Amino acid sequence: MPLSLYDASVPVFRRALTNLDAILTKGEEFAAAQGLDTAELATARLAPDMFPLTGQIQSASDSAKFAAARLTGTTGPSFPDTETTFEELHERIAKTLDYLAGVDPAGFEGAETREIVTRSRRGERHFVGTSYLLTFALPNFFFHVTTAYDILRHKGVPVGKSDYLGPY
Amino acid sequence: MPLSLYDASVPVFRRALTNLDAILTKGEEFAAAQGLDTAELATARLAPDMFPLTGQIQSASDSAKFAAARLTGTTGPSFPDTETTFEELHERIAKTLDYLAGVDPAGFEGAETREIVTRSRRGERHFVGTSYLLTFALPNFFFHVTTAYDILRHKGVPVGKSDYLGPY
Repeated sequence: MPLSLYDASVPVFRRALTNLDAILTKGEEFAAAQGLDTAELATARLAPDMFPLTGQIQSASDSAKFAAARLTGTTGPSFPDTETTFEELHERIAKTLDYLAGVDPAGFEGAETREIVTRSRRGERHFVGTSYLLTFALPNFFFHVTTAYDILRHKGVPVGKSDYLGPY
Repeated sequence: MPLSLYDASVPVFRRALTNLDAILTKGEEFAAAQGLDTAELATARLAPDMFPLTGQIQSASDSAKFAAARLTGTTGPSFPDTETTFEELHERIAKTLDYLAGVDPAGFEGAETREIVTRSRRGERHFVGTSYLLTFALPNFFFHVTTAYDILRHKGVPVGKSDYLGPY
């Protein structure tokens, strides 16, 4: 049977965030083995005006929870972006996973045509649920998960594509 | 109505590859403005054992065309990974977009339960169409598109999230 918007969002986010959490753990193990301060990884970024690792994790969390909330016409939890340590980043992911685990698939009834408006510095964007998920939420989510991975990889953490894709 | 696997794959790939093509153009403009050889961008990578920009573009192309072919039970075109210049990378994207534009949505009939086997160094992975798309093809595709973007961003190319997400 065709996909529901639930199928194409919440389980996808949960899987990728679970993998990201394990990637963070490999970052900590690398730092410990190298005698490196994990703060150097947490604040690392790929360009001076890009988010560091902390911001990428916060944005991955936000893009997942906003998507679930918007597609169900509900309000998700608010997470202030205050994480600075790996312990706090793990907690942020855990809180996001807890929220996603509690999202009721039945709430996605009618999500395909639900009107969704996003606001950013560039103004308002108008979507319906399907266009929001496929042209905004999924690409945006994977952007931040991948960039978090890329930052750690760039800093030498020995992770590979199989960590990103996760176990099958 | 729910999503077809076509909706959640081919148009998503086409949109992202079109955006990626425009990002490459910004890379060339940056190189020209800086008096930089574009080969320095084409061969740039985020870690010594990661693919350079060329490999990320080739992999983005491959993951899109393999997904369309596997989900429709057909054989896509073969593109040897010989691109080294930006001109060739644009051509690779154009060939991929041409192929995707010609994929018949009707070919996705029954794709949800189609058995799909992927083979890599790690052995065989067995999927059905839905699990293949959601746990492998989409994450893998966005991984390579984002990493291509991240490489250019890391090299100083002035692109932003709106280039990655594309126009609405």
